[in-house]
Amino acid sequence: MIHSDFIHHNPKLHIFLPLYYTLWADSILTPTEIKEMEALIERQEWLGVEEKAWLLEKLNPTQPPKPKVLKAIRKEIQSLEIKELESLSSIGIALVRKYDPKLAFSQKTVLDFQNTERALGLLGKEAGYAFKSGHQTITTSHVAEQNFDINEMAKILDGKQAVLIRKVKTIIADPTFAYREFDSLKEQREQTLVWCQELAKQGFGAWAFPKFAGGKQDMEGYFTIMETLSYHDLSMVIKFGVQFGLWGMSIFFLGTDKHHQKYLKDVGSLKLPGCFAMTETGHGSNVRGLETTAIYNHSKKTFTIHTPNPDARKEYIGNAAMHGQMATVFAKLMIDGEDFGVNAFIVPLRDSQGNMEPGVSIEDCGRKMGLNGVDNGVIYFDQVEIPKENMLDRFSFVNEAGEFESPISSDNRRFFTMLGTLVGGRIGIPRSALSASKTGLTIAIRHGEKRRQFGPEGGEEVPILNYRMHQRRLMPPLASSYALHFALRYLTERFLNRTEEDAQEIEALAAGLKAYTTWFTTATLQECREACGGKGYLSENRIDALKNDTDVYTTFEGDNVVLMQLVAKNRLTEFKQEFGDINMFTIFNYVVSQAKTSITEKNPLIVRNTDQAHLLDMDFHLNAFKYRERAILASAAQRIKRHIDNGMDSFDAFNVVQHHLVNVGQAYIERIILEEFQKAVREAAGKGVQDALTQLCQLYALHTIEKNSGWYLEQGYMEGVKTKAIRKEVNQLCWEIRKNALALTDAFDIPESCIAAPIAKRN
Amino acid sequence: MIHSDFIHHNPKLHIFLPLYYTLWADSILTPTEIKEMEALIERQEWLGVEEKAWLLEKLNPTQPPKPKVLKAIRKEIQSLEIKELESLSSIGIALVRKYDPKLAFSQKTVLDFQNTERALGLLGKEAGYAFKSGHQTITTSHVAEQNFDINEMAKILDGKQAVLIRKVKTIIADPTFAYREFDSLKEQREQTLVWCQELAKQGFGAWAFPKFAGGKQDMEGYFTIMETLSYHDLSMVIKFGVQFGLWGMSIFFLGTDKHHQKYLKDVGSLKLPGCFAMTETGHGSNVRGLETTAIYNHSKKTFTIHTPNPDARKEYIGNAAMHGQMATVFAKLMIDGEDFGVNAFIVPLRDSQGNMEPGVSIEDCGRKMGLNGVDNGVIYFDQVEIPKENMLDRFSFVNEAGEFESPISSDNRRFFTMLGTLVGGRIGIPRSALSASKTGLTIAIRHGEKRRQFGPEGGEEVPILNYRMHQRRLMPPLASSYALHFALRYLTERFLNRTEEDAQEIEALAAGLKAYTTWFTTATLQECREACGGKGYLSENRIDALKNDTDVYTTFEGDNVVLMQLVAKNRLTEFKQEFGDINMFTIFNYVVSQAKTSITEKNPLIVRNTDQAHLLDMDFHLNAFKYRERAILASAAQRIKRHIDNGMDSFDAFNVVQHHLVNVGQAYIERIILEEFQKAVREAAGKGVQDALTQLCQLYALHTIEKNSGWYLEQGYMEGVKTKAIRKEVNQLCWEIRKNALALTDAFDIPESCIAAPIAKRN
Repeated sequence: MIHSDFIHHNPKLHIFLPLYYTLWADSILTPTEIKEMEALIERQEWLGVEEKAWLLEKLNPTQPPKPKVLKAIRKEIQSLEIKELESLSSIGIALVRKYDPKLAFSQKTVLDFQNTERALGLLGKEAGYAFKSGHQTITTSHVAEQNFDINEMAKILDGKQAVLIRKVKTIIADPTFAYREFDSLKEQREQTLVWCQELAKQGFGAWAFPKFAGGKQDMEGYFTIMETLSYHDLSMVIKFGVQFGLWGMSIFFLGTDKHHQKYLKDVGSLKLPGCFAMTETGHGSNVRGLETTAIYNHSKKTFTIHTPNPDARKEYIGNAAMHGQMATVFAKLMIDGEDFGVNAFIVPLRDSQGNMEPGVSIEDCGRKMGLNGVDNGVIYFDQVEIPKENMLDRFSFVNEAGEFESPISSDNRRFFTMLGTLVGGRIGIPRSALSASKTGLTIAIRHGEKRRQFGPEGGEEVPILNYRMHQRRLMPPLASSYALHFALRYLTERFLNRTEEDAQEIEALAAGLKAYTTWFTTATLQECREACGGKGYLSENRIDALKNDTDVYTTFEGDNVVLMQLVAKNRLTEFKQEFGDINMFTIFNYVVSQAKTSITEKNPLIVRNTDQAHLLDMDFHLNAFKYRERAILASAAQRIKRHIDNGMDSFDAFNVVQHHLVNVGQAYIERIILEEFQKAVREAAGKGVQDALTQLCQLYALHTIEKNSGWYLEQGYMEGVKTKAIRKEVNQLCWEIRKNALALTDAFDIPESCIAAPIAKRN
Repeated sequence: MIHSDFIHHNPKLHIFLPLYYTLWADSILTPTEIKEMEALIERQEWLGVEEKAWLLEKLNPTQPPKPKVLKAIRKEIQSLEIKELESLSSIGIALVRKYDPKLAFSQKTVLDFQNTERALGLLGKEAGYAFKSGHQTITTSHVAEQNFDINEMAKILDGKQAVLIRKVKTIIADPTFAYREFDSLKEQREQTLVWCQELAKQGFGAWAFPKFAGGKQDMEGYFTIMETLSYHDLSMVIKFGVQFGLWGMSIFFLGTDKHHQKYLKDVGSLKLPGCFAMTETGHGSNVRGLETTAIYNHSKKTFTIHTPNPDARKEYIGNAAMHGQMATVFAKLMIDGEDFGVNAFIVPLRDSQGNMEPGVSIEDCGRKMGLNGVDNGVIYFDQVEIPKENMLDRFSFVNEAGEFESPISSDNRRFFTMLGTLVGGRIGIPRSALSASKTGLTIAIRHGEKRRQFGPEGGEEVPILNYRMHQRRLMPPLASSYALHFALRYLTERFLNRTEEDAQEIEALAAGLKAYTTWFTTATLQECREACGGKGYLSENRIDALKNDTDVYTTFEGDNVVLMQLVAKNRLTEFKQEFGDINMFTIFNYVVSQAKTSITEKNPLIVRNTDQAHLLDMDFHLNAFKYRERAILASAAQRIKRHIDNGMDSFDAFNVVQHHLVNVGQAYIERIILEEFQKAVREAAGKGVQDALTQLCQLYALHTIEKNSGWYLEQGYMEGVKTKAIRKEVNQLCWEIRKNALALTDAFDIPESCIAAPIAKRN
């Protein structure tokens, strides 16, 4: 089109070149573009008639330049090696000068060209990038830094358990534990068993058991082991948990010395694989309604364990399909036709050669979404007789006269007391879940650092972790994973030091943190999968297994929605203990009046305060969390009370506010998490580490407030200007934390052999 | 404790029995309870000293009653067969009368007992349920209804395509297509191929192709086939899509007659399995940066296809690992050292016996999270020579003189035009995703109807679908799945009737609906998994496959976050077409001023209006959606403009607002969805069907507004009273729609053999 002899005849025509190129670069010349260009050409008094005609001819939208011509223009302009970009006409003038350094344009002409550019909406600098290489932007140059000592941070995370953690990591990083693909379910299950046997050899299985059983009577260590193992294959972790946690602990906590002496050693060494048979086909959440029966026969001093109907089959029982030789079976004890509620019994399933015991039949649950290394099964009992001493008799027993005895009169209360001793599962599961989240985040963040995609015109491609949305995906979960680390440590400590008085509070805390953490894990691993794109979908990159294995954690040890309601109900009744024993109505009134006084917090200056210092202030965060916790609890109490006052059945009333109750539980758990995180920040030694934790803690707080901003606005606790400012601050914190992101995942110190994903490989 | 001769001596003591039972039932007697009871006993002048002493003795918290005694009391009271429940003392009095009908208590005594009950916080009616069977509540009695004609609804959903849908359903319900477990990856891939061959035999593969290729040139039918097949195995659907959609359509849309004549018939019959080789290891989203080269050799009239570095490998290519014989390869065309951008070429991979062509090497991608029936592979080209006619030359070609020719001057513009013809994938994928959601919802809702868990004290267990949280989980997705059905139908129609003018708008619409629908599917199937508890985790119940197979849909055909930004950018520039060609700055100014005028909508009466009629009003819904769409677009424009005005690089400016841009895309898509749903409601014939759709449409609208309530409050478009009222209305709509839920999934009319989940089996 342009590079004809004609233009060489008058090199000044080159001033049009950058404009022509830019307008044609999208292959479409719009009417406005044509009009503006025509007017510009007509106004140029220094152009001859033929020159004008020639220039106008090149604006015919049906005659676009050939691809080769367009390329030639670009090459010509690029040959100038432009350093500073101003406007397209300044590039044009430079081009003219290349042909004849003496040529010049009047001030008026230059302005005219610049105005036309503006009218065409061509942002001078932007349009010019097409001709320049090495376009630098803030987004391009944002890089990983490391503003703290990784070892110091790891020390804080590991705390008192550093030695044991190191030991477990060394074991799972051994080649024996190398990941492998499995050709069949059977093979995967066998490998999982072998891994668990290796762990038992190391003494990890019996860790929580008494010394005589080969253990260290160290429950805290047991949780640490579960958590650390969870950097490795999760089928292994769950089979480990079934054997030593569920089967072993049920004997330990529900049985008495005779059972401990008889079984614990073999359980801890995995010589005696067993099951925990509670869940039935018909009863998963509502275990109080279990239907399996244990009928006492006084003449023979035996119990007969029986499955009275298909809904009473024991279902999803881990270790049952292949390896379990015995099971702790939960069944309704019947004596002389009288029902004494659910009790626990040890029932043999197979002999050590794997032959089924008479009356026991087991079906394989088959493939599952994940955890396929665990052999879940369905168990039926057909009049299986067991000796009297097989009843786990810590909380109830049948006396010599054949009568039922228990220090706890009520069947329900007794059953829930038994379940309460097993609440450790609700600590082990979230700690395992958190490890899986940390692995997922490590993989996704490493990938986000290395993977480059898109970039400014003419510039390099940008690490995808520099994109704001990518940061939004991964930085808040990174902050939450730190937050939950400290919260779960707190829960563990509370659990280990629990007394009868605070047992219920701690049960609720465990239930809530289990639900919160496992939901977090599911959501986080979903983000990690998407953040790694197609590579995240390949099994070799491990997110597949992490996600599918942990997916059932939201169901394990109690469905999360059910657990959150349990938390809420506990919150509603906890006041009972705090203030003597006021009755339910008084509590409701109290809760409501408590919340009212706090409304004075809504200071008009604070609800609109958008100062950064205020927004980042930890006291502001904690107050906002506490306000929410209190107000939402009060309004739930108020609503339930109103419904009951109006004659609604309390069961219906609780159902009507069910959605609200889940929020009550959530708000409580979030306050606990923030409180513990802030405590950890204050206690952190070393400025670098403390600063890094502070940012994470601020992000956790503000991101949570942002998530609930609708509620805060509704309450008048914040105004729109403030929630907007918080959103901006969250973006900014994500941008800042992104620098430390790699280092923050390094501080998790997950063995490289456990991470294993090729996309996360260190160079 | 109580049933001694003593009480038989004075039957009036029975009045205490229900109170004693209730207080002891939780096994803990609190100080308040003891105090109140002691006072009550002391006040009873009709009691003798010994009787009082005996009663007081039974309040010793360290001497709880034996379990058997507690049971005996309960049985005694139950024997009354109480019909009406008033208070515990009225039950006590009835008990007394059983022993001696002549006995009576003074008015004062009765009141005294009642006051004590109240003081103890025992809600009379509630406490009494322990003694009654058949406790009825609203929650218990809520049941499935069907307020519309299922066939009529199915007709509306199927529309013009009913005959084809029936045909496809008949085929996939054939025993040939029965689901099976696979022992290996190889076996699964072979079965998937066999299924696709069956479908090709039925003519489904060639459906969109010209008649001479065995097709019906019916693109709409092709989408219907994809959608309907998606009730079955999704590996089959994706392999089908790779073969006929990607491989076939790339020849159809990017090639010319000579290619059509040569290949399409064999592609459509699956005689010639092929691949679509675009994505490279280094370039997934930013395909403009592909690095594979196609060097033209004029002397031999050939192209040499080559992988210049490991990042330029073609990755995740479906059909590549095992079955593909040819591929459409996207590569940078080089002529005489000049780069002419990305073009498409047909390259042979294997001969029909499966032997690799010289220079081609392929690695297997191995196991993936899902879609394991599709054989994805990595392809390397080592100087592979292909004849000149293998260039797909609809948009560009090399002329006889060896020069590049194209009607589109710009390489980028040409490439995006090519991609634009392939946008059908962004319609097929969301339609497939929606089918998977419908299957998941059908399974979860059927399970929710059948599964009973918990219930009021003494009453039956309740179907879990009667719980409000369960409804919250499943009813909004049910409403959205109807909403998306109509939106995707609209998208299909727009796509089929597109012109050059609206092509970009429709590309954005497809990108946005693809992202929105696939995110919806991922979230919905997660809810379905959790809503089915442990049963949802078993592979036999199909949610495993549905979830894992569709998980990559959020990445397929463009990462959702990238696509939503594309939508937002299109929205920002679309004004260009609406108002001539104003430049970018003018557009920004226009957009901003447009939004300002709309602020007049914030009528103080409306922002606080909580009338149900108003909240359910479709005009209110659409206005709120439109307001959000406009205002959020304007503020995005404003923010970008401000950043650029302040000297920020536009690349950085767009990055800073990236999070905002995703919301721009979302708000636009949500408005379209609502608009189309409302249209479908208006057009629905038959009151039953129309009412059912109206409720779903209201739920979709209000649930979406609820989700964005923080934003509406921030804007002052609504006040807290209104957002609270909306939340309540959402709960109520969930409760109402729950009645129709089963019928609404029946209207999807998914073949039972495709649903297949045992938990969803019809009785």
